[in-house]
Amino acid sequence: MTDTKPIRRVAIIGTGVIGASWTALFLAKGLQVVATDIAPNAEASLRKFVETAWPALTRLGLSPGASQSNLKFTPALAQAVSGVDLVQENGPERIDFKQKLYGQLDGLLPSDVIIASSSSGLRMSDIQLGAASHPERCVIGHPFNPPHVIPLVEIVGGSKTSEDTIRRAEEFYTSIGKKTVRLKKELPGHVANRLQAALAREVYYLVAEDVLSAADVDTALSWGPGLRWGVMGNMMLNHLGGGPGGIEHFFEQFASPMTASWKALGSPVLTPEVQKKLVDSVHTEVGSRTIEELEAERDEVLFGLIELRTKRAETVAPRKVAARAG
Amino acid sequence: MTDTKPIRRVAIIGTGVIGASWTALFLAKGLQVVATDIAPNAEASLRKFVETAWPALTRLGLSPGASQSNLKFTPALAQAVSGVDLVQENGPERIDFKQKLYGQLDGLLPSDVIIASSSSGLRMSDIQLGAASHPERCVIGHPFNPPHVIPLVEIVGGSKTSEDTIRRAEEFYTSIGKKTVRLKKELPGHVANRLQAALAREVYYLVAEDVLSAADVDTALSWGPGLRWGVMGNMMLNHLGGGPGGIEHFFEQFASPMTASWKALGSPVLTPEVQKKLVDSVHTEVGSRTIEELEAERDEVLFGLIELRTKRAETVAPRKVAARAG
Repeated sequence: MTDTKPIRRVAIIGTGVIGASWTALFLAKGLQVVATDIAPNAEASLRKFVETAWPALTRLGLSPGASQSNLKFTPALAQAVSGVDLVQENGPERIDFKQKLYGQLDGLLPSDVIIASSSSGLRMSDIQLGAASHPERCVIGHPFNPPHVIPLVEIVGGSKTSEDTIRRAEEFYTSIGKKTVRLKKELPGHVANRLQAALAREVYYLVAEDVLSAADVDTALSWGPGLRWGVMGNMMLNHLGGGPGGIEHFFEQFASPMTASWKALGSPVLTPEVQKKLVDSVHTEVGSRTIEELEAERDEVLFGLIELRTKRAETVAPRKVAARAG
Repeated sequence: MTDTKPIRRVAIIGTGVIGASWTALFLAKGLQVVATDIAPNAEASLRKFVETAWPALTRLGLSPGASQSNLKFTPALAQAVSGVDLVQENGPERIDFKQKLYGQLDGLLPSDVIIASSSSGLRMSDIQLGAASHPERCVIGHPFNPPHVIPLVEIVGGSKTSEDTIRRAEEFYTSIGKKTVRLKKELPGHVANRLQAALAREVYYLVAEDVLSAADVDTALSWGPGLRWGVMGNMMLNHLGGGPGGIEHFFEQFASPMTASWKALGSPVLTPEVQKKLVDSVHTEVGSRTIEELEAERDEVLFGLIELRTKRAETVAPRKVAARAG
């Protein structure tokens, strides 16, 4: 392990939904944050977001030194990135915009400062072409929304990203409590969005085909397989689904029926009529409940589940991750 | 609502994995259970299963009168179903076997006794052809494994199933704490197994294509979208994903990119080589942990999550379901 400077000060570029959520998380983890955005009212919106998120972050656990007062804001890019140890970039998803931005950042930053992009739709191999001098310090660090709540960060390098950058990005995110995964190939949607798309396709199909209502398909997911996916991943659940014979026995039993079942899955087309059917069915499910009430319901259980999972992980492997990252 | 006899005594036909788990659940809910199976040692295996499951059931909540001593066992079908209010059938998934069995049951049981099948692979329209006198009381009541832990029950009628049977089955399962969904069409795999298959297809593809390891795809699911699916269903999450504009705004933003992303999803072929790659990657993830340790980890978080969800539901809508079913 090389002896790199610890990351204490982070620049946030772009303070829309994702950038604001990263800001709140970094502050809660005791970091110094300098945010920049050229939108009018960006600073006020950002500070409001952080204030609103703070009770949730407090519940999930503040680090020593965590404070909203560690947030600085400037509309000037050069000032924002001066003296930072890492940049988390959340700009618009346009390749020309990003390449130009990475060129500017490459000129402003010392070569050992990581530039991490929250991009979900662009490839780092294309983005880093803009950073001609030091493309090797550019990497995708894609959060699952919202980053201040959901632990997952997907890390993917472009063709010019160095192993050292990937390792340091993993260590940084892990040190602030994120769960990182490393993708060895650049794919549209990375991984988590693809898993969501695969599931949503069948969900929409079943409601569109009048097999069941939105309320019932939500019950089927969240009181059926979804309960387990909140606890463990598909591969490990398959291992346990094989009984004492584990994953080998699982495939012996299920590889063939599973393959057959894939042929029967649906391919819905989201015509305006299909969308209307889905929307109407959701409104029946929602009834008189407001968005705020439903968000509160979601977050209360979500935070409880994250606490359960974190407590269990600490019981099983006390401080393992912290020790490795420290 | 018609004035039907409450269900106090249930026959379990077939005491394999699913039948044994149903038995444990029904006992925990204070019901009398008579189980039957012609396999040697079936009774001893069943009683052992119930005993092993009892601490979990106690944690999830025993009903008044719940006792393992309310279990009777007989290898004789006619004796098993004598005087019962409902039959839960878990026989082999062979249509000839089931049709013959339903013929026998139809002759043995009064016409108002529901015959519910746990079948995942057969259609009730085919099964109920065997019950020539009263096919209308036959229905699929498909649990998500294991039924004594996971709340979901999928209810589907065949072409001859009556609305009254479906309503009574829903009321019965709901009264013992299950979450029921009603399918208006007979489809292979019902709903939950299809959702699992849709997700697993992409998971296997990503590992098979060396995008990431089994450990990482499990992290991506269970610390990303899976966390939410343990809390709420896809449709409601989409509604909240649309912000203040709800599900309408969600589709305005995402219908088009979602449709594009479906084209990029994978279609893996589970050749022996691909299966070996998946198996090897799972073993790397598992390391030295035993099946028992992993099961304990899964169940501890799973029970905690079910408690969280149940508590939240009771806060929001106190005793609504119980009042309706009572």
